Amino acid sequence: MQQLNDETYMRLALQLAEATKGQTTLNPVVGCIIVKKGRIIGMGAHLKMGTEHAEVQALQMAGKDAEGSTAYVTLEPCSYYGKTPACAERLVKEKVSRVVIACQDANPQVSGHGIQILKDAGIEVEVGVLEKHAIRLNEMFSKFITKKMPFVTLKTASTLDGKIASKTGDSRWITNETSREYIHTLRHQHQAIMVGVETVIADDPSLTTRLPVIGLHPIRIIVDSNLRTPLDSKAIQDKSAKTILLTTENAPCNTIDHFKQQGISVIICGNNKHVDLVIAMQQLAEQGVGSILLEGGGRLNGAMLEAKLIDKIILMYAPKIIGGEVAPANFHFKGFEKMSESIVLENLVTHNFNNDICIIGYPNYISD
Amino acid sequence: MQQLNDETYMRLALQLAEATKGQTTLNPVVGCIIVKKGRIIGMGAHLKMGTEHAEVQALQMAGKDAEGSTAYVTLEPCSYYGKTPACAERLVKEKVSRVVIACQDANPQVSGHGIQILKDAGIEVEVGVLEKHAIRLNEMFSKFITKKMPFVTLKTASTLDGKIASKTGDSRWITNETSREYIHTLRHQHQAIMVGVETVIADDPSLTTRLPVIGLHPIRIIVDSNLRTPLDSKAIQDKSAKTILLTTENAPCNTIDHFKQQGISVIICGNNKHVDLVIAMQQLAEQGVGSILLEGGGRLNGAMLEAKLIDKIILMYAPKIIGGEVAPANFHFKGFEKMSESIVLENLVTHNFNNDICIIGYPNYISD
Repeated sequence: MQQLNDETYMRLALQLAEATKGQTTLNPVVGCIIVKKGRIIGMGAHLKMGTEHAEVQALQMAGKDAEGSTAYVTLEPCSYYGKTPACAERLVKEKVSRVVIACQDANPQVSGHGIQILKDAGIEVEVGVLEKHAIRLNEMFSKFITKKMPFVTLKTASTLDGKIASKTGDSRWITNETSREYIHTLRHQHQAIMVGVETVIADDPSLTTRLPVIGLHPIRIIVDSNLRTPLDSKAIQDKSAKTILLTTENAPCNTIDHFKQQGISVIICGNNKHVDLVIAMQQLAEQGVGSILLEGGGRLNGAMLEAKLIDKIILMYAPKIIGGEVAPANFHFKGFEKMSESIVLENLVTHNFNNDICIIGYPNYISD
Repeated sequence: MQQLNDETYMRLALQLAEATKGQTTLNPVVGCIIVKKGRIIGMGAHLKMGTEHAEVQALQMAGKDAEGSTAYVTLEPCSYYGKTPACAERLVKEKVSRVVIACQDANPQVSGHGIQILKDAGIEVEVGVLEKHAIRLNEMFSKFITKKMPFVTLKTASTLDGKIASKTGDSRWITNETSREYIHTLRHQHQAIMVGVETVIADDPSLTTRLPVIGLHPIRIIVDSNLRTPLDSKAIQDKSAKTILLTTENAPCNTIDHFKQQGISVIICGNNKHVDLVIAMQQLAEQGVGSILLEGGGRLNGAMLEAKLIDKIILMYAPKIIGGEVAPANFHFKGFEKMSESIVLENLVTHNFNNDICIIGYPNYISD
C-alpha cells in the first residue's frame, strides 16, 4: 500500500470481487471492506448466487462495531428483497456512516435506488472511486442483466500468421503453458464454453477446466446443426459438466432422443441449414447462461462476429510462423470489401505471457 | 540522469550512435563521449562512410584536454588504417588514460586487435558496458561484415487476422499514422527497400521515405522475374533514389535495355522461373547493399522466409478484423506440416503504437 486513502480500500474490495469471478454465475461479483478509526473491521465478497451479498458478509464480521464505520463496496448496494434482503437497508440498519461505491448497478431494478436509500437515511455516499475498473469487472453481468443475452468472449490461439493449426491439422501446441493456464482460467471465469461440432469430431476435447488448483467446469455448448456429435465423445460421456447441443429443426428426432437419454440438453435454434446463432444466444440466456467463452474454429468465430454476438475478443499469438494456404485461420468469413469496414477492437490491452502475445479488445461493429 | 556512472556516459554515446542509423551505409554506427574530471569534454559520432570515426570527432572537440581523459565508445576502436587512420592508435597518441567500450567489433579485421593496441599502450580498458544494447545497434553491420550478405528486415502491416488487404484489394489504411511514421523511419534506417513486382503493378508506390523531417531514401529493389515493372511507374521514373531490378536469365534482352536506358540497374539472378533469392542477396551484397527492408506481399515474404534470408521480423497489427478467404495474407507459402516445425521468433519485443500492436523478433529456423 503506497498511500492510505479511499482508493486503497476500494482496490482491496475490487481484488476480493475479482477473485470470485466465475463462482457467482448470473450474479455480479462484489467485494466489500468496512473500515473504522483506521482499522479494517470487516471484509466480504458475494460467493455464490443465492447466498449473502458482500456487504452482509462484511457487516457480519464487523458486528456491532459497524456503527459509525465506512463501507467500501465495489457495486451499488441492492435496493430490493431478492434472494436475500436489500443490502442498502441493511447498511442503514447497522448505522454505517459513510458508503463509498465504485459504480452504480447496471441492473435496472437497482440502478440508483440503492444509493437513494442510503442518502435518504442521512448516510454520506460517494460514487465513482475506481469506477472504470469496477464497471469492467462486471461487464458480463451488465450485458446479461440489460440485454438478456449472454456476454460472449471469443478466444483464439494462433501463430503470427493467424493459423490455428498446420495444413495437416496439427495444433499441439500453438501457445505455451503460461497461455494455456490463462485460457483455462478463462474457462473457470465463464459459465459456459462453446465450440463447433467439427472441433469435437477432430479433437474429442473434454472442454473442462484444468489448472494447478481446482477450477469450475463451464457448461459445454456444441454448435451442431446436424447432430453429428459422436455419442461416445468426451463432451457427451464426461459428466463433470453439463452439455448443451445447439441444433436446428432439421435434426433427426431419434438422434435427439439418444442425446436426451444421456442427460444432454438439445436446443432447437431455427429451421435453417445452420444453427441460428441469435436464437441460440436468446435461448441460452433464457436457460440462465450469462457468459460464454467461444473457443471456435475460424468459421464459428466468423459467423458469431458477423452476427455481432461477440462482446470481447482475446487473441493469443504464439511467436511462430507456420504458413500453409490451407492451414485453418483464426477467422473465416466472407469478409468486408473495404479496410474501413473492418471490425475494430477498442479499449485494447496487451499482455506478454512468456513471449506469447495476448491482445484483448472490444469489437466495434463499424458497418452498423 | 539518475546516477552518474559509466553506464550514464555509455548510454549517451549509444544515443548518438542510434541517431545516425541509416546514414553510415555499410559502416557501423558509433558514438563516443570523452569525460575528464567530471565534465564531458568531447562528443562525436561516425556520420558518414569515409569520414572521421566517432572517436576522432570527439577527440577533436576535446583538443589537448584529451590527455588523461576517459573515452566511452560504443564499439571497439578500429585497429587498421582504412579510409581513415586507426582510432585505437589515435587514442594512444592523445594520451587518453581509460577507454570504456560497449562491445567488440564483429569485423574480423578489428575484433580484439583494437583493444589489444590500447592495452599494450598501458591504457585501462573496460569492455562490456551496455554490451547487449550495443551489439543490437549494429546487428545489420555485423551480419554484413561477417556473412557478406545483407541484413534483411521483414516488415508486414496487417489486420489481426493477418490480412494485408481486403478481398477487393483495399489496403488504405491498415495501420495508423503513428505506425506509418515508424515504417518510414525504418526505410530511413535501411540502405534498401525491397518489394515484389505485383506491388509495383497494383499500387505504383514511390517507395521513398516520407516523414515530418527529411529522411534518407532507400535504394529501391524490385523482384521481377519477368521484367513486368511498368516503365512509367514511379519506382522507375522517380530519380530521388536508385532502383535495382532483380530478374532471371529468361528476361527479354530488349526490356533489360529499356530499363538500363532509364538508369535502372538490372541484376540477373539465376535461370529458374523465379528470381533465385540467395543469388540475389549475394549479388546485392557485392554491390554494397548491406541492409534491406522487405515490404513484400505474402508470397515474397514466404519465399524469403523459406530461403532463410530473413534476419529480423517486424509485424504491425492494426486492431481490426476484416475476414475474406481470398483477402491476401501477410505470409503465403507452402508451410510446415507440424506446429513444432514453425519458424519461431526469438528475443521478442512489443510496442503499442497508438493501439497498433508491433511485434519484433528474430527468426529461429527450427527445421534446420
